[in-house]
Amino acid sequence: MERVFVLGGGATKVGEEWEKSLRQLFVEAALKAVGDAGISLRDVEALYVGNMSSGVLQGQEHLGSLMATWLGIPGVAACKVEGACASGGVAVHQAYLAVASGMYDCVLVGGVEKMTDAVVYDLTTALMMADDYEYAASTGASFVGLNALVYRYYMKKFGVRQEDIAMFAVHDHKYAARNPLAQFQFEVTLERVMKSPLIADPIRLFECAPVSDGAAALVLCSERFAARIGASELVEIAASTMATDTLSLSDRADLTTLRATRLAVERAYKMARIEPSDVDVLEVHDAFTILGVIHLEDLGFAKKGEGWRLVVEGEVERDGRIPTNMSGGLKARGHPVGATGVYQVFEIYQQLKGIAPNQVSDAEVGLAQSVGGVGGTVSISILKRVR
Amino acid sequence: MERVFVLGGGATKVGEEWEKSLRQLFVEAALKAVGDAGISLRDVEALYVGNMSSGVLQGQEHLGSLMATWLGIPGVAACKVEGACASGGVAVHQAYLAVASGMYDCVLVGGVEKMTDAVVYDLTTALMMADDYEYAASTGASFVGLNALVYRYYMKKFGVRQEDIAMFAVHDHKYAARNPLAQFQFEVTLERVMKSPLIADPIRLFECAPVSDGAAALVLCSERFAARIGASELVEIAASTMATDTLSLSDRADLTTLRATRLAVERAYKMARIEPSDVDVLEVHDAFTILGVIHLEDLGFAKKGEGWRLVVEGEVERDGRIPTNMSGGLKARGHPVGATGVYQVFEIYQQLKGIAPNQVSDAEVGLAQSVGGVGGTVSISILKRVR
Repeated sequence: MERVFVLGGGATKVGEEWEKSLRQLFVEAALKAVGDAGISLRDVEALYVGNMSSGVLQGQEHLGSLMATWLGIPGVAACKVEGACASGGVAVHQAYLAVASGMYDCVLVGGVEKMTDAVVYDLTTALMMADDYEYAASTGASFVGLNALVYRYYMKKFGVRQEDIAMFAVHDHKYAARNPLAQFQFEVTLERVMKSPLIADPIRLFECAPVSDGAAALVLCSERFAARIGASELVEIAASTMATDTLSLSDRADLTTLRATRLAVERAYKMARIEPSDVDVLEVHDAFTILGVIHLEDLGFAKKGEGWRLVVEGEVERDGRIPTNMSGGLKARGHPVGATGVYQVFEIYQQLKGIAPNQVSDAEVGLAQSVGGVGGTVSISILKRVR
Repeated sequence: MERVFVLGGGATKVGEEWEKSLRQLFVEAALKAVGDAGISLRDVEALYVGNMSSGVLQGQEHLGSLMATWLGIPGVAACKVEGACASGGVAVHQAYLAVASGMYDCVLVGGVEKMTDAVVYDLTTALMMADDYEYAASTGASFVGLNALVYRYYMKKFGVRQEDIAMFAVHDHKYAARNPLAQFQFEVTLERVMKSPLIADPIRLFECAPVSDGAAALVLCSERFAARIGASELVEIAASTMATDTLSLSDRADLTTLRATRLAVERAYKMARIEPSDVDVLEVHDAFTILGVIHLEDLGFAKKGEGWRLVVEGEVERDGRIPTNMSGGLKARGHPVGATGVYQVFEIYQQLKGIAPNQVSDAEVGLAQSVGGVGGTVSISILKRVR
């Protein structure tokens, strides 16, 4: 396998972008990434677009050709990759394979979602397409409802108070407040989270990732390409993996763990030849506070039932043992579904380059986890600074 | 790059499958492919699902996890790949890269579309999502309408009669009549084609690919894997390429050529180290008769404006110079959009194994071309028999 490097990245500010279209968001992020990488658009040989719901929300498929056209580089190999809310992470994996294969030396990968559009149908229906239409969506279940089941089961099984789980939202907002790309650049108190409206018992509004528009992009390249343009101080993708689990919770033996995370991260640690203790900075897919807690456990940073302790005891802070969601996470940076996985890898890239808004001191190894559905798909990226 | 082989394939009969769901079609084809390859489902490490419109037609995304679940192999890496009507061909390319990278040794790739469903919205709208929503679909243009523009322009530019182009449908039906997987297993006369209802002037009903349900799948593997299971008489993917063009016709300099075909096939001939004259059997993406003619030209088998001669003069027959669409093509084998590209590669695989329904004598090299939109995306696969 060829070695794969992140040469540059860029992203739009996450928010409600009523004045920008899907293609505008994508092109804006892509041009930033190309600029940051110091390459020309003509260097791009292949383009991957991570997106979940453009068909339903924008009445638009064929995003590969669309974005190649609007970037002014029709001709390149291009396609859309979909893995529900993990679409961005999955697109990064495909772009990784494209370079690792030796077939492409310079690949642009971006994720984009514009959730404030509803050309064909509404957002709640669109998002529920991440679960089984025939056995889950058709019963009237919503995504927050499914996560509420997980939440309640977790609290009961491990005897954990909601206040300790909800702290994840407070944590995320603290860092989003200092991230210029974040949707919610303000802090919140635990009291405000706990008093926010109930969405699906026990989940409160301020425990949910928001509805977001945004796009993020990365330029990946081979060692050959990096050498040709004289790039130095590179960030390498030391591991890129994916795994699936049963699409629906109803087929799972245990609601408090995501098997796909465990499978994907086990492969990734092996591939990168590291252990959890080697990770200096972490981005997890906390679409709901409970998921953030579960991810810390499944990724190997806490025992089952104790992930919340890392938050409550400050271990996930910038100067803690495992600095987590320095971007503000899905909760406060925002969660433009198909873009989120790319935003996460972009944050890790910035951390390893030493240019992140909430910079972790001397970060050398970072990990990003992206989740689709309630863990039906998980992608893991491990990045390493190379001197 | 690792060498990549097709170890087995399978497909459902194309047709209107009112009694089978999207997942049933996919699983049926996948199990046939796994059986044909002589492997166990447990050998599969990654799964690619080519599909265009499951979101709008079935209210279902996240097909990677869905199909892994229904195949009984949740855990594998899996995702959906979309490139409009070329989704199947694009999925084959991604599966090819996955094996070529050296990361995966055994990959299952399938394409599926069930066009007779309309859970969220209608089929005509779904298909038009292959073109630009903001600049083409929103004007009321339909897909057959766009191809009618190409058709009329071609006839005028090269002084060709419609009867000579419409012969492509007669050709396709002749071979579909003997393909048990084909949707239309009967022959048609040119008179019947020319007297069929007008759909979008000048395109007649019998010049259009039908509305189809179907799924096809292939098992791709590395040399290492083939050796391990003692496979012999292999079929190798000698080249797998992709290219894009502007999404819409309105941005093209010439309506009578698909630049994406020329780019992709040029790369493919170079990669496989062959010339058009080395190709023994060909599958082209003739969603409309005019496209079949244009493809023969863009792929290098005829001069511009003369592709129709190959059909009229019998050169595309089973014993002709370049046997084409021995499956019955999109017109008569059927065109379940996201599956079509995989059906095409499956047909070529069967030809090289000597087990095709309309077997070309001693075929050693085959080429399949898959097209998305009106040429916005094109994928090319060149397969070679390896002794």
